[in-house]
Amino acid sequence: MMLRSTTREQAQARREKLRERLGRGLVYFPGAKEPVRNYGTFSADFRQSSHVLYFSGVTIPGCGVVLDLDEGRFILFADEMGPDDLVWHDKEPSHKELQELTGADQVQSLSQLKPFLTEAQAAGRTLHVIKENDWAGVKASEDLIRAVVALRLPKTSDEIQQMDEAMRITAKAHELAMAMTRPGLFEHEIQAAVEFIFRSAGALPAYGPIATCRGEVLHACKPHRELKDGQLFLLDAGAELSNGYATDITRAWPVNGRFTESQGAIYDVVLRSQKAAIAASVVGRAYGEVHKVAALEIIEGLKDFGLLKGSTEDIWAADAHALFFPHGVGHMIGLDVHDLEDVGEDYVGYSDGYTRDSDSLGRRYLRLNREMKAGFVVTIEPGIYFIPAYLNDPKMEARYGDFVDFEKARSMTDFGGIRIEDDVHITEDGPVVIGPGILKERSEIEALVGSEATMMDRFRI
Amino acid sequence: MMLRSTTREQAQARREKLRERLGRGLVYFPGAKEPVRNYGTFSADFRQSSHVLYFSGVTIPGCGVVLDLDEGRFILFADEMGPDDLVWHDKEPSHKELQELTGADQVQSLSQLKPFLTEAQAAGRTLHVIKENDWAGVKASEDLIRAVVALRLPKTSDEIQQMDEAMRITAKAHELAMAMTRPGLFEHEIQAAVEFIFRSAGALPAYGPIATCRGEVLHACKPHRELKDGQLFLLDAGAELSNGYATDITRAWPVNGRFTESQGAIYDVVLRSQKAAIAASVVGRAYGEVHKVAALEIIEGLKDFGLLKGSTEDIWAADAHALFFPHGVGHMIGLDVHDLEDVGEDYVGYSDGYTRDSDSLGRRYLRLNREMKAGFVVTIEPGIYFIPAYLNDPKMEARYGDFVDFEKARSMTDFGGIRIEDDVHITEDGPVVIGPGILKERSEIEALVGSEATMMDRFRI
Repeated sequence: MMLRSTTREQAQARREKLRERLGRGLVYFPGAKEPVRNYGTFSADFRQSSHVLYFSGVTIPGCGVVLDLDEGRFILFADEMGPDDLVWHDKEPSHKELQELTGADQVQSLSQLKPFLTEAQAAGRTLHVIKENDWAGVKASEDLIRAVVALRLPKTSDEIQQMDEAMRITAKAHELAMAMTRPGLFEHEIQAAVEFIFRSAGALPAYGPIATCRGEVLHACKPHRELKDGQLFLLDAGAELSNGYATDITRAWPVNGRFTESQGAIYDVVLRSQKAAIAASVVGRAYGEVHKVAALEIIEGLKDFGLLKGSTEDIWAADAHALFFPHGVGHMIGLDVHDLEDVGEDYVGYSDGYTRDSDSLGRRYLRLNREMKAGFVVTIEPGIYFIPAYLNDPKMEARYGDFVDFEKARSMTDFGGIRIEDDVHITEDGPVVIGPGILKERSEIEALVGSEATMMDRFRI
Repeated sequence: MMLRSTTREQAQARREKLRERLGRGLVYFPGAKEPVRNYGTFSADFRQSSHVLYFSGVTIPGCGVVLDLDEGRFILFADEMGPDDLVWHDKEPSHKELQELTGADQVQSLSQLKPFLTEAQAAGRTLHVIKENDWAGVKASEDLIRAVVALRLPKTSDEIQQMDEAMRITAKAHELAMAMTRPGLFEHEIQAAVEFIFRSAGALPAYGPIATCRGEVLHACKPHRELKDGQLFLLDAGAELSNGYATDITRAWPVNGRFTESQGAIYDVVLRSQKAAIAASVVGRAYGEVHKVAALEIIEGLKDFGLLKGSTEDIWAADAHALFFPHGVGHMIGLDVHDLEDVGEDYVGYSDGYTRDSDSLGRRYLRLNREMKAGFVVTIEPGIYFIPAYLNDPKMEARYGDFVDFEKARSMTDFGGIRIEDDVHITEDGPVVIGPGILKERSEIEALVGSEATMMDRFRI
């Protein structure tokens, strides 16, 4: 157990703010359980609940964090190690040490958690939990959800600093991936190198990396294909610090280091779209508007390229561009990659009277549409894909035939896909891209790709 | 979904053998669920149930394998992808393709699984499951457990070949780890390099690697310490192929590349013990005897070193050596690292009238004591550790003071621990170490450690 970079004082201040918002009752946040792999003898990489990290900094698996708002007390439930445990496992702090580290008013054994909460319920006290199954018989508390969302979405400068640090690791991984790329490499070799950079820096992948030459499969996660000359490669991978702060970055580049004419043209459309969307990410604007800015750039670009035809507003209204850009332009990010999505995406993304347009091909997957506030961190990640399941679907052709040159599009189904993604901090002074800046200009990419083409030779079996 | 190296014919033959043993009824093996990380948006590395891999080769998460022994039929339950799935996920085979790939007599949707098994139960048919919670209301079938243990423990030459292949990957990782080691490196940097070799070869860690300069903590798994001049480093890490076959290897070496006199002396005791135990691993001998062979070598060695005193048999009988060698000499390995431990360790390790000696400090953690048969693969992994929790315990001193020089032992509590582990195939012609042979002689280790001491420089942030 380490508190890492959530300090005792930060966590204390956050608990105090939660108390101000919620007022009365008890709050219970369960720690995440140790994950198991195969039948459970061996654990996978542990990930603490973000709520526990945020309000206590405690990384002990299975712990319990209880906030007594009426009394202003923080009670931590965790077990001490027995003598046999010390032979097998790394030393964890004692109760006394935990109290010192966390500023808890009391530290009790896990066996005391159930009696404690049961008694509180029997005494008629309100028990707030954030998810339905966190405590038997207690429904998720909307008040708690709204309070936690309101607290966690705007990031403090400390939190931005953590994301910047994570991004330095992510940048290194993407740059190594570009440098090592050459025809004949396998997708999983690049993914392994990316995870190596994350893990050797003491971080972990914030999500299962997408490392693929089939970028049109949006969540391709079976990376065992050989990279071929002429293909594009897409890497969607971000590091997560041991304190939970995440990053989410996508880049795409040519396997042989040179964009073909059509690859370059489509790449530039995506890049223009991404830059325009970043510029549009300002305080007070609705995120759905940012999505539209990105989509309009893509429509203009695909019209120039000859894949779309007709008026830009008609194409937007008809959703025809969504055949090539079928997902939303991004989402909130912070302690979670899809920040706070565990409490329900719509609490995070559709407050303030906005509602999801579930019938729109282009906007049904838009995770977020609300006014942006200072401190929010969002991803901006437009893309263009040539998706056989859409382009070969007669229903799609009947619906969008007026706007789309299906014949031309179908001639490009081996193109794959391009997505360019950065994480953007919304500030009063405008949008700020998190991290040191990961190269995304075509000329920079062409200069880097393949510059360490022999790297895997040392490591292959 | 890929069948990988369990062929349709192999799986079919295994199902036939299971039918011969069990005779009648239905057998149900549930596929493992997709594991989740954080709150579940993103999955961790998937691991299929070994039983499903063994009897069907199917790697689809959450599938259901049903064997109708009465009719000699294999019914596979898995879902086909819908059109939207194809936009987001890698293509999985259709039911028709699955039938062809697996030789299933029938492939049905997952929604049909529950009705199928419920109807079979209502019709009074016997339903065998291997774990209590695999099907509600049905207890684990001892007949099924015994049949599966009997089938899976003796490995065929195909299976040994898989383990040999996994071991080539493991060997590469251990050798790289030794080569890159130098003072100033961090434990997690070495662990990251080890996992890189596994993943870049298309494999995964078979268990959470132990990469530590605190080898006396048997399952140390928080690798964030800096390696210091004069310390020992211990690496317990094995690759697992994508078809599930596992390896489990431990080596230990000096951080600066030179064993001190006492490190060298203790190392040689462990190595002699390990070699003697491997030599003793022959058909017909009880594994508990192999453990004793290893322990007696350790007793002799620690007597020579001056840590133990008295007669070897008395020390063995009193368990005094267990202060330094507190675990069993090994366990079964195959598709699982602790093979088949999911059905209950004692079914695997203590059949044939052997029972576990739970009161013995030295043998309570012995996972296995039964007669070895041709085809078994076991780990052989003795070790010597300087464990503060034991050496500073007055109760231990009172109990073992006649046999142990506690003062001398306590002067060595910064020593750490040494374990040397190989995986051994028991054959009619004697024990065969799996794989290409990973170096373990002191001179070989000293020649390799630090030979690529600059490796991390390229990759550090």
